[in-house]
Amino acid sequence: MIEADLKAAAARARAAARSLGARPRADKDRVLDALARALDAEAASPGSRLLAANASDVAEAQSSGLDAALVDRLRLDGGRVLAMSAALRSLASAEDPVGAVIGMERRPNGLLVGRTRIPLGVIAMIYEARPNVTVEAFALALKSGNAVMLRGGKEARRSNEALVSLCRAALAEAGLPEDAATLVPPGGRDEIRVLVGLSGLIDLAIPRGGEALIRFVTEHAKVPVIQHYKGVCHMFVDEGADLDVADRLVENAKLQRVGVCNALECLLVHEAVAADLIPRLGRLVELGLEVRGDERACALLPVARAATPDDWGREFLAKILALRVVPSFDAALDHIAQYGSNHTEAIVTRDYGRAQRFLREVDASCVLVNASTRFNDGGELGLGAEMGISTSKLHAYGPMGLEHLTTLKWIVYGEGQIRGG
Amino acid sequence: MIEADLKAAAARARAAARSLGARPRADKDRVLDALARALDAEAASPGSRLLAANASDVAEAQSSGLDAALVDRLRLDGGRVLAMSAALRSLASAEDPVGAVIGMERRPNGLLVGRTRIPLGVIAMIYEARPNVTVEAFALALKSGNAVMLRGGKEARRSNEALVSLCRAALAEAGLPEDAATLVPPGGRDEIRVLVGLSGLIDLAIPRGGEALIRFVTEHAKVPVIQHYKGVCHMFVDEGADLDVADRLVENAKLQRVGVCNALECLLVHEAVAADLIPRLGRLVELGLEVRGDERACALLPVARAATPDDWGREFLAKILALRVVPSFDAALDHIAQYGSNHTEAIVTRDYGRAQRFLREVDASCVLVNASTRFNDGGELGLGAEMGISTSKLHAYGPMGLEHLTTLKWIVYGEGQIRGG
Repeated sequence: MIEADLKAAAARARAAARSLGARPRADKDRVLDALARALDAEAASPGSRLLAANASDVAEAQSSGLDAALVDRLRLDGGRVLAMSAALRSLASAEDPVGAVIGMERRPNGLLVGRTRIPLGVIAMIYEARPNVTVEAFALALKSGNAVMLRGGKEARRSNEALVSLCRAALAEAGLPEDAATLVPPGGRDEIRVLVGLSGLIDLAIPRGGEALIRFVTEHAKVPVIQHYKGVCHMFVDEGADLDVADRLVENAKLQRVGVCNALECLLVHEAVAADLIPRLGRLVELGLEVRGDERACALLPVARAATPDDWGREFLAKILALRVVPSFDAALDHIAQYGSNHTEAIVTRDYGRAQRFLREVDASCVLVNASTRFNDGGELGLGAEMGISTSKLHAYGPMGLEHLTTLKWIVYGEGQIRGG
Repeated sequence: MIEADLKAAAARARAAARSLGARPRADKDRVLDALARALDAEAASPGSRLLAANASDVAEAQSSGLDAALVDRLRLDGGRVLAMSAALRSLASAEDPVGAVIGMERRPNGLLVGRTRIPLGVIAMIYEARPNVTVEAFALALKSGNAVMLRGGKEARRSNEALVSLCRAALAEAGLPEDAATLVPPGGRDEIRVLVGLSGLIDLAIPRGGEALIRFVTEHAKVPVIQHYKGVCHMFVDEGADLDVADRLVENAKLQRVGVCNALECLLVHEAVAADLIPRLGRLVELGLEVRGDERACALLPVARAATPDDWGREFLAKILALRVVPSFDAALDHIAQYGSNHTEAIVTRDYGRAQRFLREVDASCVLVNASTRFNDGGELGLGAEMGISTSKLHAYGPMGLEHLTTLKWIVYGEGQIRGG
């Protein structure tokens, strides 16, 4: 797509967003239902356009030697498509954030003043080869009254074409503007640079994928960007902690799923409990975990190998755990402040005061006491489906749900008031 | 300040922010009180360091031929300094946004989940030759638990040095880290480029000043920026509107203060009331107003001159009003959607349905019915002092008060819960 075409498409998306913003919830839910029905039909027929398109994407990806894990994320089958339509139906049953009014207040001069929730406008979603993100992003944007421009990875090109045409058909069926969903054909990265430079047309860019993609978007963006870099999650086992709880939480946080941003990467152990807890970690080593410890940790767990300086603050996304013995609670806070990525941090403790201090003083999008880091997730925290997760503090910090795809504008009911001083 | 020094200063500010974030309200209010007392003392002695420094700035500005209006914004006297200390005392009496907890909820697995309000961290304030902004920005950042890096205009160099040393003394007196206030010596614009590139050290940049400064910051920023471009404010006088109200609101919105962003720039009049309202505007012309009208408007107001295409969507910041007759309510909405700057838009009407539609469909940070556009102001809307005003929708839309200098992090109280699926 050349620059002029992309700009024209963004302008059409903007016009669509304007009409979408004022639509009642029922109109938007009708689109979600129509899309769910269409996906059910695709899922039911093996030769459907969607499954055929995806099969070609997968075949091409395999022949081009794409990593097996990525091919798996790219693949669609009946079950995965039905999961999409189920998610659409549950989103249809979710509340509409748009139109809520908060803080109405009567001013001394009689003005009635408050704020109302409105859509952001046009959201640019930039992601990799995961077709399910196409439907998720469209649905969340639509439910919150936003138009979306979808630039997925080129490996999913055909799948995304099929999915976006289903989205546009559902919009048309419900009488909403088709341009509320626009596919940006993936070329190199030029179209990303152009897209995130369209200030005045695009209200927010959300990159979802590897750190390189996110840095590229941030580097070139002239529009606001929601960033999610690394999830370097720590767990601190405090003096006097229940070691059975610690043991269970470490196993869950590190091993329940290793390739995710809220998985544990570094365990900090108070020296007072190190001798009792660390040898127990041998059990996890038998489950395939590699432990990289500091000197004191290695002395207590001979199977561990010595950590190198760059193992601190590192996101392994693998069955690898950095392990450090710390002399105090404050030393743990200092380590987290230095090496954490503002994502997810947890403490295991029995001490009331230190639990409160940890919650207050640790700077991360989610801070937990006696719970697994894996709970930093839109669904687990009760937000519902998430559009992404933010590790920068502006607008959203942590999982982004429907509410984070909206903003508040001031509304004023007057009776002819004028301003004096 | 060379790049390395600036980076080191930002790192010190970051450390200060970390300790500031956990301080109780009383500590922060003590700083505000100490600074207020110090400013009272400066105001009382004509030869004080602050007034002497400001006098040198003013003398230099005048001899270098700085515009008289800018010199006036630069000038400090006893009265203006006392106004600063009064503002500090009222801020000290305002609630502390930090630490508030919202939406605590018990999840099905027993986790207690919610969000708590925290400071952003380090705020870079980039502004022009207005010394009062130095104290305002420091005070709002401090009250909300943030460290601030202040880069004011070079014309106010000596005044800002004096003010920031008072801020740092007040911090020290109350036992808080002096690096919560850092002056960035103004050179060319290099230090701005460096400052707004320090992602990881600076959490937010707020440029306050002319459009050129704001575009420069946005162009070079790698950290989030709160933007405030133009205030192209419209007022639409609807069919059947009370023309006495319209007349009064137009005068107040356009002439009460002309050089401000919430002043009226373009009046849209429904054709059904044009013949009755527009001739009345002659009264404002006698008050020195220049009207630039479309053909139909000029026919009704001969003293008006013909508007040129670039008068639509233009921020005059002067005694000039663009005037257009529109055939319908929808034509007015279209004009605003095309030419507005998302700042402030008002309607004068007696019609319930169109009032509701205007409030719902017009995209601006503040939308008013039967009230002057001049009310889009932190103080007037009940926010208290404002750090700036945002015309972009992320994080803040409209005036930014204390709350907008904070964000929400998730907190989770667990009892050993682990994640299943």
